[in-house]
Amino acid sequence: MNIDDATFLEHFESMSSIGATPNSGVERQAGSPADGQTRQWFRGLMEALGFQVRQDSIGNQFALLEFDPSLPWVGVGSHLDSQPRGGRFDGAYGVLAGAHAAARLRKQTDSKFNIAVINWFNEEGGRFPPSMMGSSVFTKKLRVEDALRVKDATGVSVGDALASMSATGDFALELAAYVEVHIEQGRRLEAAGIQIGIVDSTWGAEKFTCQVRGDQGHTAATMLEDRHDALFGGALVVAAAREVAEQFSDEQATVNSACGEFHVSPNSPVVVPSQVDLRVDFRSADKERLTRAVAEFRKRVDEAAARAKVEIELTPEHSWPAQEYDAAGIELAKSAADSLGLSHTVLKTLSGHDSTNLKDVAPTVFLFVPSVEGISHNERELTNDNDMLAGVAMVTEVLRRILNGEYV
Amino acid sequence: MNIDDATFLEHFESMSSIGATPNSGVERQAGSPADGQTRQWFRGLMEALGFQVRQDSIGNQFALLEFDPSLPWVGVGSHLDSQPRGGRFDGAYGVLAGAHAAARLRKQTDSKFNIAVINWFNEEGGRFPPSMMGSSVFTKKLRVEDALRVKDATGVSVGDALASMSATGDFALELAAYVEVHIEQGRRLEAAGIQIGIVDSTWGAEKFTCQVRGDQGHTAATMLEDRHDALFGGALVVAAAREVAEQFSDEQATVNSACGEFHVSPNSPVVVPSQVDLRVDFRSADKERLTRAVAEFRKRVDEAAARAKVEIELTPEHSWPAQEYDAAGIELAKSAADSLGLSHTVLKTLSGHDSTNLKDVAPTVFLFVPSVEGISHNERELTNDNDMLAGVAMVTEVLRRILNGEYV
Repeated sequence: MNIDDATFLEHFESMSSIGATPNSGVERQAGSPADGQTRQWFRGLMEALGFQVRQDSIGNQFALLEFDPSLPWVGVGSHLDSQPRGGRFDGAYGVLAGAHAAARLRKQTDSKFNIAVINWFNEEGGRFPPSMMGSSVFTKKLRVEDALRVKDATGVSVGDALASMSATGDFALELAAYVEVHIEQGRRLEAAGIQIGIVDSTWGAEKFTCQVRGDQGHTAATMLEDRHDALFGGALVVAAAREVAEQFSDEQATVNSACGEFHVSPNSPVVVPSQVDLRVDFRSADKERLTRAVAEFRKRVDEAAARAKVEIELTPEHSWPAQEYDAAGIELAKSAADSLGLSHTVLKTLSGHDSTNLKDVAPTVFLFVPSVEGISHNERELTNDNDMLAGVAMVTEVLRRILNGEYV
Repeated sequence: MNIDDATFLEHFESMSSIGATPNSGVERQAGSPADGQTRQWFRGLMEALGFQVRQDSIGNQFALLEFDPSLPWVGVGSHLDSQPRGGRFDGAYGVLAGAHAAARLRKQTDSKFNIAVINWFNEEGGRFPPSMMGSSVFTKKLRVEDALRVKDATGVSVGDALASMSATGDFALELAAYVEVHIEQGRRLEAAGIQIGIVDSTWGAEKFTCQVRGDQGHTAATMLEDRHDALFGGALVVAAAREVAEQFSDEQATVNSACGEFHVSPNSPVVVPSQVDLRVDFRSADKERLTRAVAEFRKRVDEAAARAKVEIELTPEHSWPAQEYDAAGIELAKSAADSLGLSHTVLKTLSGHDSTNLKDVAPTVFLFVPSVEGISHNERELTNDNDMLAGVAMVTEVLRRILNGEYV
């Protein structure tokens, strides 16, 4: 099988047809039929390239190129699942780039490492929170039994969803190093006209679930002062999250916040809602600002509860600190980019990725390629062909140097 | 069959077992299996009492007591459908009170009217908006073909739901007068210790659908200034509706507003939402205040759209003016209450009811009985037995006077 640039683009187009949406996106939420189909397509591709494909207990998928059973393993990958009506590049590009990089190196002589091309299960966390589930279990930050119990909005568990895709196995692996390439999902590389981003640290993130509890009433007959309106309370929480993030952002540093999920009960037009369940997160590269912003937000949540005469419970759900990637990996990547004549810069990742977990258990190189207009988690997400191909060349060169023993 | 007070309470308890919820409420949304069962229970009850039961094209159910085919018809009734996790009194009490009143008068001699006890289809509008659907079609404010096409959140149409209950027919009727008793759903009667409310006018209502259109993005990687966050926009609309209502309320008059329904898309934790669909209503007894409040709200909606960088479309969905009930009917009711020794007062209805429609096509008497703490659209809705029985006596006396020719 051919593993040149044209073939990469053909494979990418073929992969993007699975779960394709009308506006060039994909819908392949974790554990869905489309996710299962993408996994099987990836398995077929890798088996044709001579890899053995295995699965672990949380559905992470490992395509193995074993030069010698006695060698340690380097991992390269990302995730094949998507957001609802998501983009076709987020995650999937990194898995395929890793696969092509590994395939281009399959004739390598005297390799110091075997290669595992990895599809981490449920990075998105849209259907089954938290995000980065597969890599969290792999890195022992989340217990597999807790992950398998998580249910989606319709009551289907992760365990059920994995079983429906025949997606689990008993494979286990230790990684000596890890490489990942991902689309930037921001506009910094595009704005600067730079081909490769080398990630030197993550932003910190604090994610919460939030339950607003009021009392059902009649929207007309219940006077304003008698209401315990959970939707009004929830609306004040959403507005407060945005206002606090803006308040703590300036020229020096930024705090981002967002609510993506917001469920109203009973959600009937003539009923004052009794309950709202929402998720909210705060993120910043500046640890101290993040702490102050969250404290201010908690104060605003208490004010919202008093104003709407409801109870509001804010529960920490998932968090990670602002943390640095391996310095030697950054230097390795700079040198690799220079040798290929690719322009590069060092930047931070605002969002979490599988590499956010992996960097805590193995030396990790994390790379970005440009995203047009920074649009992501959107069908219109786009990375141009030339940028994708530069990323594949970059991952191949980084991986080649690792196989040569130039990293760890 | 016995038609005394004890039997009324037995029948009421029996009816309340259909679609019963754990906390003494009922869930019998229009067109649901529980609604179908309640209709059949009502049909059986009325047939045992010697009534003929017929249905019209929108599923209104008429239990007919025909003294003489040449006589005009007086209607008495309310609705058997409920809100999700609603109370067992809202609507259902009025239908059963009307049934018992009619049954108590079935031996009436020289009646000037035949009697139709009516269960109006889908008064609540929780599953299929707008509310007061059956009585709106009956009074020609809504075309039956438009009503039948309305779909619920899962895509089931009113036509499908009616067919699933075998709830339509070709019956048609003209009413010469109409009587309805309903629970107050407010705390005015209870606070004043008064048994019967005689409704002299409706509050006006302006109901809107509201669509907020933004653009999907990544909650972490999309910077605040690049967002078009439909949930933030929707939250500002909800807060504005409440704040405007408070701003236009004072000692002289009140404006109420509420959002009961609020749908977020795609509703995934890591995605900036692209769309929110919500319903919002404003209500007041003061026509001019209502107009000014809605104008101010429109201004605030435009500000919210600019603030959140989204488009917001506000579409009028359903409205009715503040309007008076028939003055002669109010006098008739006062006199009937006095003759029974029941305490009474005149008040306005804040919410819409089937009688809101009926009063526009026939002389109408509309009565309230007390609601404990004014709680409604809630499983804890409660009207005490004595108050229910006083209401049945009151409806019976009003109806008796109408049959005697003392009203129209």
